[in-house]
Amino acid sequence: MNAPVDIRETMDAARWRALAEHLLDELRARSSDGRGVTRECYAEGEEAALNLFRETAEQYGLICSQDGAANLIVSLPGDDLSQPALILGSHADSVPQGGNFDGGAGVVAGLLCLIRLLGERHRAAQPVRLLVLRGEESAYYGRANIGSRALFGLLNPSDLDAKRQGNGRTLRAALEGTGADIAGIEARSTLMPANFASSYLELHIEQGPVMVARELPVAIVTGIRGNLRHRRVICRGEAGHSGTVPRWLRRDAVFAVADLLMRLDEHWNRLLERGLDLVVTSGICNTDPERQAISRIPGEVYFSFEVRSQSFETLEGFYELFRSECRAVADTRHVKFEFDERVYTEPARMDEAVIARLRKQAEQLGYAIELLPSGAGHDAAVFANAGIPSGMIFVRNRNGSHNPDEAMTVDDFMRGVELMYAVASAAP
Amino acid sequence: MNAPVDIRETMDAARWRALAEHLLDELRARSSDGRGVTRECYAEGEEAALNLFRETAEQYGLICSQDGAANLIVSLPGDDLSQPALILGSHADSVPQGGNFDGGAGVVAGLLCLIRLLGERHRAAQPVRLLVLRGEESAYYGRANIGSRALFGLLNPSDLDAKRQGNGRTLRAALEGTGADIAGIEARSTLMPANFASSYLELHIEQGPVMVARELPVAIVTGIRGNLRHRRVICRGEAGHSGTVPRWLRRDAVFAVADLLMRLDEHWNRLLERGLDLVVTSGICNTDPERQAISRIPGEVYFSFEVRSQSFETLEGFYELFRSECRAVADTRHVKFEFDERVYTEPARMDEAVIARLRKQAEQLGYAIELLPSGAGHDAAVFANAGIPSGMIFVRNRNGSHNPDEAMTVDDFMRGVELMYAVASAAP
Repeated sequence: MNAPVDIRETMDAARWRALAEHLLDELRARSSDGRGVTRECYAEGEEAALNLFRETAEQYGLICSQDGAANLIVSLPGDDLSQPALILGSHADSVPQGGNFDGGAGVVAGLLCLIRLLGERHRAAQPVRLLVLRGEESAYYGRANIGSRALFGLLNPSDLDAKRQGNGRTLRAALEGTGADIAGIEARSTLMPANFASSYLELHIEQGPVMVARELPVAIVTGIRGNLRHRRVICRGEAGHSGTVPRWLRRDAVFAVADLLMRLDEHWNRLLERGLDLVVTSGICNTDPERQAISRIPGEVYFSFEVRSQSFETLEGFYELFRSECRAVADTRHVKFEFDERVYTEPARMDEAVIARLRKQAEQLGYAIELLPSGAGHDAAVFANAGIPSGMIFVRNRNGSHNPDEAMTVDDFMRGVELMYAVASAAP
Repeated sequence: MNAPVDIRETMDAARWRALAEHLLDELRARSSDGRGVTRECYAEGEEAALNLFRETAEQYGLICSQDGAANLIVSLPGDDLSQPALILGSHADSVPQGGNFDGGAGVVAGLLCLIRLLGERHRAAQPVRLLVLRGEESAYYGRANIGSRALFGLLNPSDLDAKRQGNGRTLRAALEGTGADIAGIEARSTLMPANFASSYLELHIEQGPVMVARELPVAIVTGIRGNLRHRRVICRGEAGHSGTVPRWLRRDAVFAVADLLMRLDEHWNRLLERGLDLVVTSGICNTDPERQAISRIPGEVYFSFEVRSQSFETLEGFYELFRSECRAVADTRHVKFEFDERVYTEPARMDEAVIARLRKQAEQLGYAIELLPSGAGHDAAVFANAGIPSGMIFVRNRNGSHNPDEAMTVDDFMRGVELMYAVASAAP
């Protein structure tokens, strides 16, 4: 067994950082659409990103292969993929005219870690691999986490018939050129090799504003919020002339929905004080475009309802409050609420042991680290819910994601990569 | 001077009622559009109604003439129009596919009163005339009370260029065939003859639900609500991913507008308790149709604001509350409000002396009478604001107005006509 070689001999901090900058710039250049980046899954943009990762990995002496869902596996020489490994994972694709870092930063981070592990010419205390996932964004086929869900037999056969926005090409057709095991996906087989993953770690930019507001360069994720939704709730009151109907005879749908939202806002506030994880949104809220008028008491309002939390109990509990306040408002304001199908997306908890490893290494690096929930979905949720102990590192980022204005500094990024490397190189 | 003749000799109650039914039916038949009635102003439907009124008046020995705005004047024989009279007024036109009674009931009521006054062959204690107004509804030219406003020089020259919805014909062109004094209207001359009106009395169906709810066949109107409006207020917050932005960093425009409306609702409720006349409506309220999504924190809401009251002070007072609550919500929820032009429509008070005359006669008739505000606009507001002491009688009606489902019973109508006749035949 070779003696450990200090990183400074082969890959000092400046060279590592320069490689990070080069890879992020090159990734942006190869998938640029003029304004942002476009890395369509199972198509040109995602392929361009995968090619960059593959070329770079091979140039540094790493080994590339592909799993049954056409995701890219990058491994160290001598790893025959037979032992459960720490999987460093992220996704290569982006939304149309998206930002460079959503997904891309996580892949570059994993690649930097493997290159450094190799550069140190020591056998890591555990096998470590990079998994570059495809099709994480739902923008093209209306299905998120295609690459990771396929690995666990979680794609529905009907998902393969989903048509791409715009050109109508099916997901099945898009997968055909990639070498993916389409029959296996259809049969809902588990395509991830047995004993492939002992745990899963994903670095991602924060897509919300919390870390900027709280001045946190790096954070550890506690869990990924699930949600309960109604796409469309209808509040039905009674239309009338705005001048002729007094308050006591009104059944005003706008005032009723306003009342409902303020009741929910109060519950939300109280539950946060008790420390629960919860966000509530009505992103769509409209009077009837065909019949609305300044002088018409609105007889109907159409609105969406969404509650997100890391906790299934909080989701269900708040949903019950929502329905009960709908009944109370219906009673007080003489309106009716009609609900479409309730849609549920499971929350995912990050693994306590993985979080503990992240905390320990963060402390050793001297980071002022905090734990945060992830509001957006990630492949880590799929791994966690498939029973693989999972964790996530968030890196500070301005302006949200899914837009070209994402802004992560290389300083912050390198702090996140250092943490990932520390976990990958330490004993599990 | 002839001795008064009892009404039963020439026009007993049954015959009077039969004439009312006949006129209302005939009016409906002549302006039917299959589903409702359509009496377009300065066009076929309104002309058909005017012809019916003119024919009927002449058949019973009444005199017809026309004023400078092409409204129909019906007077008793021997009235040379030189003395100020009690004017019984209402309008002949309707909205497209409207109901038969909005306007029509008031004209028929006035005609019934003049016929009965003539039938009694006694000189009334005061001159009484019927004024059949044209163009009260704003449906065709976007201007309400064209016929009455023209009489007082209140039409803008630009109103004459208003184009009819659909065919683009100008109001000027529509007026050309009617004999109206277009040059006088353009010069904003007062076209109503001097000493024409000592007071004005209009019978109208209630267009709201109050009289049905309170079981009042007939009511006396206290005033006509004016209003203060913004067609479009924009609440600007900040859009964001619904999963990633916690409550304390949100600038949610939907929650902000809901908060504003609930604050206004509380003020409204308190002011009603103090006895103020007030209705508040946000008839249009929308998230951005281009950008709304279930998982997007709404960054903007567009809404209309309207407050109506019979009192100018209440309008202004509530408007100040509105602006001050906008400031408070902007502060608390970190949003901004942007306001378009404020539009003001003057309220009108019905005359105390006219109300007293109506009350006195109603008491003598044994009516359980109540006073109500009018939420919708009426020609009576134009007369009142032009300084002519005015009053209105409301008759119970189901299903609002401006639709074919208006429902006034002939029993209720005859109660209203009896009251009008009592006022018209008594000494002022």
